[in-house]
Amino acid sequence: MHTLLLNREDVESAAQPEEVVRAVEAAFAAYERNAVVMPAKSYIDFERYNGDFRSMPAYLDTGEWDAAGLKWVNVHPDNPEKHGLPTVMGTMIYSDPETALPRAILDGTELTRQRTGAAAAVATAHLAVPDAESLGLVGAGAQSYTQLEAISEVRPIQEVVVADKDDERVTRFIDAFEDEFDVHAGTIAEAGHCDVLSTVTPVIDPIVDLEDVGETTHINAMGADAVGKQELQTSLLQEATLVIDDYDQCTHSGEINVPYAGGAITDADIAAELGMLIVGDYPGRNAESGVTVFDSTGLAIQDVAAAHVVYETARNTDIGIEFDLLGIAENRS
Amino acid sequence: MHTLLLNREDVESAAQPEEVVRAVEAAFAAYERNAVVMPAKSYIDFERYNGDFRSMPAYLDTGEWDAAGLKWVNVHPDNPEKHGLPTVMGTMIYSDPETALPRAILDGTELTRQRTGAAAAVATAHLAVPDAESLGLVGAGAQSYTQLEAISEVRPIQEVVVADKDDERVTRFIDAFEDEFDVHAGTIAEAGHCDVLSTVTPVIDPIVDLEDVGETTHINAMGADAVGKQELQTSLLQEATLVIDDYDQCTHSGEINVPYAGGAITDADIAAELGMLIVGDYPGRNAESGVTVFDSTGLAIQDVAAAHVVYETARNTDIGIEFDLLGIAENRS
Repeated sequence: MHTLLLNREDVESAAQPEEVVRAVEAAFAAYERNAVVMPAKSYIDFERYNGDFRSMPAYLDTGEWDAAGLKWVNVHPDNPEKHGLPTVMGTMIYSDPETALPRAILDGTELTRQRTGAAAAVATAHLAVPDAESLGLVGAGAQSYTQLEAISEVRPIQEVVVADKDDERVTRFIDAFEDEFDVHAGTIAEAGHCDVLSTVTPVIDPIVDLEDVGETTHINAMGADAVGKQELQTSLLQEATLVIDDYDQCTHSGEINVPYAGGAITDADIAAELGMLIVGDYPGRNAESGVTVFDSTGLAIQDVAAAHVVYETARNTDIGIEFDLLGIAENRS
Repeated sequence: MHTLLLNREDVESAAQPEEVVRAVEAAFAAYERNAVVMPAKSYIDFERYNGDFRSMPAYLDTGEWDAAGLKWVNVHPDNPEKHGLPTVMGTMIYSDPETALPRAILDGTELTRQRTGAAAAVATAHLAVPDAESLGLVGAGAQSYTQLEAISEVRPIQEVVVADKDDERVTRFIDAFEDEFDVHAGTIAEAGHCDVLSTVTPVIDPIVDLEDVGETTHINAMGADAVGKQELQTSLLQEATLVIDDYDQCTHSGEINVPYAGGAITDADIAAELGMLIVGDYPGRNAESGVTVFDSTGLAIQDVAAAHVVYETARNTDIGIEFDLLGIAENRS
């Protein structure tokens, strides 16, 4: 009857990549089967500060388990410079759908990194060449770590090429993973000629050209999450087999939003939603796939699915602190 | 840089009725001046269980202070019988609008009681006779306590008449307040002939008739919060000077929703929004007012305003527990 408090470290400890990937895959499948309730993100935008808040509630039923919750997340670009705080912070409330009891309050920032890595891994599992051994990363910030952790669960990754103009970030990344992988710095083209490429930058001018990637590279385009952002050149998007997470979000604020608004990418260019590959309504990689791109904007059901496995693991391994938030600890369950 | 955890007891201790009433009044004024951002409540409704979740985000700027936050709240009618849990539970995230840091996580259930009492007090301050000394309560459940606590801040209440068919609830209520007030059980008509009446029941068949109330009674109609609910007979609503908290919410699911849907109450019957009385766009009680009714559905800005004063008081008086939810306690600011 208590609420479990899970801070950043707790979420990191309890988030087993293999299980988060499986839960996020189940969430995308549920989405495709219409077994989710997910209202559009609700924005709080105000002029006084440079920033906004987003409310992301969702319920999903995978058939094996169901879960509900809400992430309250912001984008405040001035935070690092003015306040020494991250641009994006999240708080997640994970609820029992049957009673609505808040089972856990989680650090939604770490949870976002985990569920974002997991989405890339799910796409990679269906779209990368089966024996993919190399992973390129464009961008070595906070999101790059969970890309490698999750993707290496679905492919036998050995070599990792990291491209970032900030040498310190690259060094930090190499330090973190050099014991496990053959990881080294490289150019964007070197990263792009790996079997799998994940782009995790906030750029508005595309930085990856068609000639920067291999003929069968699978690309996870993770960075674009707002109108105006784009990491991959439009010619690359046009050439690739294009898989999206959600039509409304991708056309509005995903990797394709700029060329879609301009007419260079149309509905005919979109091959499928990720969930269709999971439930078998669209094939995974085959001889015709060529370059594949997964446009990821991030869905509320990913957060709920990740919170589900983090909560279950935390409960089973005594991670976190019990707190009687609602003053009902004496009630029965 | 920590997040303050405030459980039920903490919220109760830190919520000084006088300050909560003042903050909620400021919130309604800000609403009237268009100095708030408050998207429509977002519902998660699913068939599997008898229940729903609501996401209530808001930002408000009173001129003196601004605040942001979100309440995640549910209605699960089977909870008491099946699970020994309350029908309604809430969790509130109170955020710094400038940085989005989650300043506090609060028990949203107790907070809801506080801000609901405060809304009734604000309406009473503007609509009850100035020397109101008697308060009637129809319904002696959880919400009735904060009605008395808040309303007695704005009027010199001495006598309290409680009507509830559950004798145990009435006894509990009398026990709680008999040291402070002349409080006794009575009929609905006895409660209704007080200077102020608050109705806090979940009924769908109206229980208060026009003849049950005095000629200048001010009524706070707090109970109706869903389509189909109604506490006051339509003839009473037609006769009264009708003040609402929010047009969309009241016509959809407030005290007037049933007669409004049926055409017995129209826009012409609605005298004003509460905020108009605060900013001076509509007069408070005068010789022509007669019976007045405040239709309260509950706005997200009330929760944020109440959280603001609870948080400030808790910080200043060392209430609550510090928790490094986001793992950023070492950051500056």
